[in-house]
This record gives sequence, C-alpha cells and structure tokens, in this order.
Amino acid sequence: MDSVYKHIDAHADEYVTRLGEVIAIPSVSGDASMRDHVFAMGAWLQAQLKRLGFSDIEAHHPGKQQLQGKEIDLPPVILASYKSGTEKPTVLVYGHYDVQPALKEDGWKYEPFTMVEEKETGRIYGRGSTDDKAPIISWLWVVEAYQALGKDLPVNLIVCFEGMEESGSEGLDEIIIKEAGRYFKDVDCVCISDNYWLGTEKPCLTYGLRGVSYFFLEISGPAKDLHSGVFGGTVHEPLTDLFHIMSKLVSSDGKILIPGIYDDVALVTEAEESLYQNLDFSLADIHNATESQTTIHASVRDTLMHRWRFPSLSLHGIEGAFYAPGAKTVIPAKVVGKFSIRSVPNQTPERIAELVKTFVDAEFSKLGSKNTYKIESPHGGKSWVADVNSWNFVAAKKAVEKVFNTSPDLTREGGSIPVTLTFQEALGKSVLLLPMGRSDDGAHSTNEKIDRYNYIEGIKLLATYLEEVATVEK
Amino acid sequence: MDSVYKHIDAHADEYVTRLGEVIAIPSVSGDASMRDHVFAMGAWLQAQLKRLGFSDIEAHHPGKQQLQGKEIDLPPVILASYKSGTEKPTVLVYGHYDVQPALKEDGWKYEPFTMVEEKETGRIYGRGSTDDKAPIISWLWVVEAYQALGKDLPVNLIVCFEGMEESGSEGLDEIIIKEAGRYFKDVDCVCISDNYWLGTEKPCLTYGLRGVSYFFLEISGPAKDLHSGVFGGTVHEPLTDLFHIMSKLVSSDGKILIPGIYDDVALVTEAEESLYQNLDFSLADIHNATESQTTIHASVRDTLMHRWRFPSLSLHGIEGAFYAPGAKTVIPAKVVGKFSIRSVPNQTPERIAELVKTFVDAEFSKLGSKNTYKIESPHGGKSWVADVNSWNFVAAKKAVEKVFNTSPDLTREGGSIPVTLTFQEALGKSVLLLPMGRSDDGAHSTNEKIDRYNYIEGIKLLATYLEEVATVEK
Repeated sequence: MDSVYKHIDAHADEYVTRLGEVIAIPSVSGDASMRDHVFAMGAWLQAQLKRLGFSDIEAHHPGKQQLQGKEIDLPPVILASYKSGTEKPTVLVYGHYDVQPALKEDGWKYEPFTMVEEKETGRIYGRGSTDDKAPIISWLWVVEAYQALGKDLPVNLIVCFEGMEESGSEGLDEIIIKEAGRYFKDVDCVCISDNYWLGTEKPCLTYGLRGVSYFFLEISGPAKDLHSGVFGGTVHEPLTDLFHIMSKLVSSDGKILIPGIYDDVALVTEAEESLYQNLDFSLADIHNATESQTTIHASVRDTLMHRWRFPSLSLHGIEGAFYAPGAKTVIPAKVVGKFSIRSVPNQTPERIAELVKTFVDAEFSKLGSKNTYKIESPHGGKSWVADVNSWNFVAAKKAVEKVFNTSPDLTREGGSIPVTLTFQEALGKSVLLLPMGRSDDGAHSTNEKIDRYNYIEGIKLLATYLEEVATVEK
Repeated sequence: MDSVYKHIDAHADEYVTRLGEVIAIPSVSGDASMRDHVFAMGAWLQAQLKRLGFSDIEAHHPGKQQLQGKEIDLPPVILASYKSGTEKPTVLVYGHYDVQPALKEDGWKYEPFTMVEEKETGRIYGRGSTDDKAPIISWLWVVEAYQALGKDLPVNLIVCFEGMEESGSEGLDEIIIKEAGRYFKDVDCVCISDNYWLGTEKPCLTYGLRGVSYFFLEISGPAKDLHSGVFGGTVHEPLTDLFHIMSKLVSSDGKILIPGIYDDVALVTEAEESLYQNLDFSLADIHNATESQTTIHASVRDTLMHRWRFPSLSLHGIEGAFYAPGAKTVIPAKVVGKFSIRSVPNQTPERIAELVKTFVDAEFSKLGSKNTYKIESPHGGKSWVADVNSWNFVAAKKAVEKVFNTSPDLTREGGSIPVTLTFQEALGKSVLLLPMGRSDDGAHSTNEKIDRYNYIEGIKLLATYLEEVATVEK
C-alpha cells in the first residue's frame, strides 16, 4: 500500500481544496429554499463519478415532499458502480450529501459554508466537513488514486449516496428494498462512514446501535382549558394524572420501572466485557460534553454499557400544558406526555409497546381518575448489533492497524442510524460502521470540523479496508 | 322605592341604548393598539359624571407601561364624589371600564363590539356587556333617577373606576393606598359589582375569595439539551426529577400531599354549613361548564366547599421541555415546573411557601440526583373572607329580598379579585361583592352577554342597596 499512501499524502492539499468546494454548496435538506443546492451537490457527485469512470450511474428520484408549505422534489439517491472484476468481492458504501442547517450568527467562528483550515490546530471547519462530505468524497479519491497509479481496485465498489439523511431519509428505504435483488444483488458487505470515533485519539469500528420506541400518552378531561381558581379542587386534572403516570416510568438514576422491560436484554458475555477495556474514553469526556457532573455511573464500563447495550427511558415533554415563561393559572384540558425507550438486543419494539401499555393501564386504574387516556406508539426502530468476528470487521480491524498502528476500539452507538438496519435486512450481508471523524467534530452543532489528519488518514483507511476485504479469509 | 323602580322601568330602553354606546368603545387594555379606546371610554365616563353633577372628578394617571414593544400611557383611575349630606353614610363603589380582547372569528355570533339584543331570549350581547360595563354605568343611572325624581340620594357616593383591570390593574393599588386617608377618608363601606351569580336563577352576595401562591420549580443538569440516544441512561435527567417531585404534590382526587398544608385551614362551622343549603347550583352546572363528567365530589356541598373554602393545588405545565406536536428525542437541560396553590383562611402565603419548600427539599434529597434545583414563589395573594352579618351585607341582603323577592345565596369565589383585599386592608371597612350578571354570561369568553332582566333589575338592586345602607342598623 506504500505507493497508495504516498499518492494520498502527495495530493492531500488537493483533497482539502475539493472538500472546500463541496462545503461551499449549502446542501441543507431541511430548508425548502435550499433545495436547489442539494440538487447541485448531487450533480457535483454525478459529474465526479462520471469523470472517474464509474458505470451504471443512476439517479433515483423518490418523488415529492411537502416542506414549509411548498411541494418540492426530493433529491436523488445516486447509485454508481466501479467494476474491477467478477471474481472480486463487491463492497457497497453508503453516505449522504445533504447537511444540517447553519447560520454564522448561531455561534460559528467562521462562515459555515466557506471552508477555513486552521493551520495551527489542523482543523478544517465548515458545515458538512465531517458529516458527511469528507467521508463520501474520500471514496472517490481512493478510486482516483488507484487509477493514477495504474492499479486495479481490489474490489468492485458500489456507491449509494442520498440527499435526505438529515431530514428523515425520505424515500431511501423503498429504493434499497427495491434494488436489493437488482443493483445490489452481488453485494458482499456494506460499509458506512457516517459516525465518529468514541474519543479524539483512537479510531474505532462500530458494531451496534440502540433502537428507539416513542410513546404519546394522552390524558383528557374537560372539553376546554379551565381556570384553576374556579375549578381547582373540584375536577380530576389531566395534568396531575399525567405527572403521576410518567413519574412511575423511570427513576432518577435511570432505572426503567416498567415490569418485565429488562427480561429480553441480552446478558453481558465475557467476550463483550473485554471490549470495554482500554477504550478511548473517560468520564471527563461525558462531563465535558454535558458541561456538568451529572453522570449516573462511576466507571467508564458502566457508563458506556448504559449508553450502548442497556435500554434507557427519557421523558421529553408535554404537549397541551403551559410552556411559556411567566405564570398562568390554567388547568389544561388535554395533555400529551412524550417519552421514548432506547432498546437493545433482544428487545423488540412490539414487546416494549405491550409492556408499556400494560403498565400504563395498571397505573391509570390505580389513580381512580374520571379522566380518560390513550397511549400510542408509532412504529418503533429496532436495535442492531453485528458480529465483530465477521470478515467484514476483521478486514476493517486490520486496515486500522495498518494505517494507525493501533487496534481500533469496538464501539456501539446509543442512538440509531436506521439505514444500517435497512441494509442489513434487505441485503442480508454484514454491515460495518467505519467512522472517519472524531467525537468532538460537532456534527449538527456550530463550528463543525474535521481534522486534516482524520481526513487524509481516513482516505488511506478506506483504501486499506478495500484491500483487506479482498484478501481476508471469508 | 316604587317611584324609583317605575322610573327605571320607564327608562329601560334608554339604559340599553347607552350600554350599546359603551360596548361600541373597544376599550381592550391588553392590546397596545387599542389604548386610545380605553382612554375614550374613560373620557365618556368623566363626561357622564360631570353631566350628573358629581364633584371632585379626578383622573389619576398611574404613568406608563411597556406593552407589545411600545411604551404607552396607562389609562386613568377615575375618582368622583356625589355628595348628599355629611350626616349620611359614604359608599365607595369600584368597577372597571376596560374589557378583554374579542374577535368575531373567535366564535362570536355577532360582532363583539356592536351590541345586539336578542328579543326572544332577552340577552344583550357584546364584549364588556356584563364585565364590567353594565354594572359601572348602572351606578350612574341610579343617581340620574334620583335627580329626575327630585329625590336626594340616601348616601354619599364615591366612584372609583379603573381601566386596567383585565391587565393586572397596574398602578391601582398605589392610588388606593395613597387616597385611603384623603379621597376615601370618609368611606363607610365598599361595594364591588364585578362577579357573577352562582347560577342563572338566583342573586347572590359574595363574601369570600381564595388566595393564590404560584411556584416555579427549576431543575438543572447539563449545560445544554442532550440527545437521548447518546446520553439516555448515563446522566440524571432534570425532567425525570421534575416529574418525580411534581407527582408528589397532589393526588388525582385533589388532595394536597404536602405535610401540614391543611393545618391552618379554618374549620367548617355550623353557621357556615347552613350557607351551603339551597344554593342555586347543581353538579350539572359544573358538568356543563367543563363539558365532562370529571368532578371529584359527589355533592354540591363538597364540590363548592372545595372550590371556595378548601385549598387546591393545580399543576400548570413545564417551561424548557419539548411542547410541540410530533416526536423529539431531547433530554432538556433545564426545566421549570409551574404549579399554584389556591389558599383559604387562615393560611398565609408565607407559611404555604415555607411548607412547599420544606417538602420539595425533602423529596429532592430522596431522589439522590446530581442535578440541582431551586424553587421560587413570587409574592402570593392572600385569601379574603367577610363577615356576612356585618351591616353592609345585611343591607345588601335586604335589597335583594326587596327587588327579587328571594333571599340571596351567600357565595364565595374560588379565584381571586385582588382589589377586594386592597380596599379591605387600606380602608379597614367592610367590602361587599354584589354581582349583577349570571354564571353563564361568558365574561372573558366568546358571546359575552348580560340579560336585560339582570341589567334593569340590577339598577334597581343598586339603588335599593344604597337605601338600605342608609337605614340599616350599624
């Protein structure tokens, strides 16, 4: 790989310049007035794919959406193939070319859509720098490097780039499911570079995600809001009932109080315990991230296990109650409590919803209230966990070791990346999350950045990963 | 009184026409753009007072206020005297000439600022009809009737009309306190006609009001909102703590759970029990008002005692949590729970605040949370209760019996009318609440009305009340 690494190092400035080019396209998917820029970013990618000799370039248009009172076209899901030989494995890589909104006045030190590289810190600032523009274009520079060096790519590469990830990936699942048996039929493994290192020092591979089940608990009493002077003390108040029920869901130290909820949680294995040693993480990281000392658990192991592999329940708020500053003496007529449960293997959304409903039923009857309630849970997202001993992960581990001279942390995420599970289920192949950026990159936040080190070494990592996929024992 | 009653009946249409005149002045105090109309309404009253020969007409200007981004003048508190003889008692009457906002599209069947009299129902519709324009102008028609009949008024009358009642009575208390020893120095009793009959059939005198203490319980954890995927299960969540504390304040059936809170509540006396017999009220009234069957208590007595003479605690909402429709997986960083306690004799706001703080302290420590909290209670409003056997009430009772041929209900209100207590404390004289309208008048609501019957008989009632005050044994 020496020649590839040399080529990448020699062209590092060019890669950074091109990152600046794509940061300058404000492809914000959540703002109707920016939709043309999302399409422009898609067109930029298609032009690059064509220039690099990708074949079967297809722009799948998922249709239209209603956004901010306008009906507008959804940006395309772009598929393209780089064929290197039928005997070689086929790797599908996914990424997204849309970004979160950003305004300088939100607290950015530089214009968010103008790339600024700080030479002294090595940081490259700009909206989309780490999420997810550097990762997606890095796949292109890998192909370009092999071409420049006159080398065959060690695998067949298929790219799948979407432009709606920051806005619910509208239309993506249908396309993946439809193309599973056609465009994606020869795929052997999937690699997604759209998350982050656990810390700031050490690369990682990510093998698990929690699922999420969201609940709406609606309690109704009077037909309209009442004045607490006139009615306080004489009627059952929906908000009082809601506080009683929701206070019984979870303790201050995070224990879910719904009977049976932990029954389906997979036991911690010895092999798993070993993954929690020597992680690039300390409690100071979470204290810094929250700017507080409010952690529940005293060790890194317990803290990360409760983020990654145990369920949690968070209360989010109430719709229908008084929420503004100041004092208002209202008795709200109808309130909707919002909470969600982060789920883990082997919990299922169906079983979780059943347990929650049974518990809320029982607690509500205990109240003896004359109010009425209903509890609703939209379709829940499942958790995901991969086999860290599968060849896809072994290849990635070797690649990290070659590029960074260290073994990667094996991590999970507490949140969900729904496309992971869609690929897993639609294709039935191993999916790997191979992050490029660091935990402090500020994706979705102000002053988003990627370190030049992570970007350039990341290009090497992706190249090496493809080499290892080609040669790893399957 | 026959000649007075005859005069009033003969001029009923004229009184209705003049009510239409003042309804047409949209004196909305809560809307900066309507402030000129509030002043116009004040000028209308001053012109009438001058025409009727009131003396010492003073317009007290409380200064300026900030409203909707503008600095505007507060409308005047208008004082005027009608002197009838130094040997006669002096009655101070209070009312307000501002009104609540109203828009036809809110659900009014007629234009709110154009009076419409429905001949078939006898209802006179219009914003301010019952709250509080008919009552305040009725005092003027009493004086006018005596003049027309060549009779001396049986008392000295002082009027105090304000234009900010619907917007917190800004500046009024200071004026009352300042004038207690000057303009109001000869006052023997106070009469306020600014509330409503208990039902729709029977007049009442009102002798009590609950106080109110408002609480803000703030719980803080992280410095900024967190993502429940990343942090759920690993940090103490402020909203979880808030639900735990607030759920422990009151039961679904309205029992306040704060230890000691009922200790200062005055015992129900036998004399008081008798006041709860034969009231013009049924549980159907509260079911109709709330459009629900969610009453806690099974009898009228228990229901009204819990509205009037027992404390209640209502939860109002949360500031800082998610409140919009839809699903959001946020862990709010700082939340402020809002609740209030309606208080009764002999509770004091100071003691209530102390008990609440002690309880919240104890419950918060039980949580073992690393979050921090503070509880704040702005200056609480005291409850008020009058002696129903005082001559002011006896006079009013006799007046009701003469005009309506029935004994009045003796009622309280669950809410507060702060000016009542201000007069009571500043002047040290008996204050009487003598309502003119019915419980279904819809003050503050759409389709506000006053029945022609209540308005015209109400004028007779005020006149008769003054006669009785002059002759009652003191």
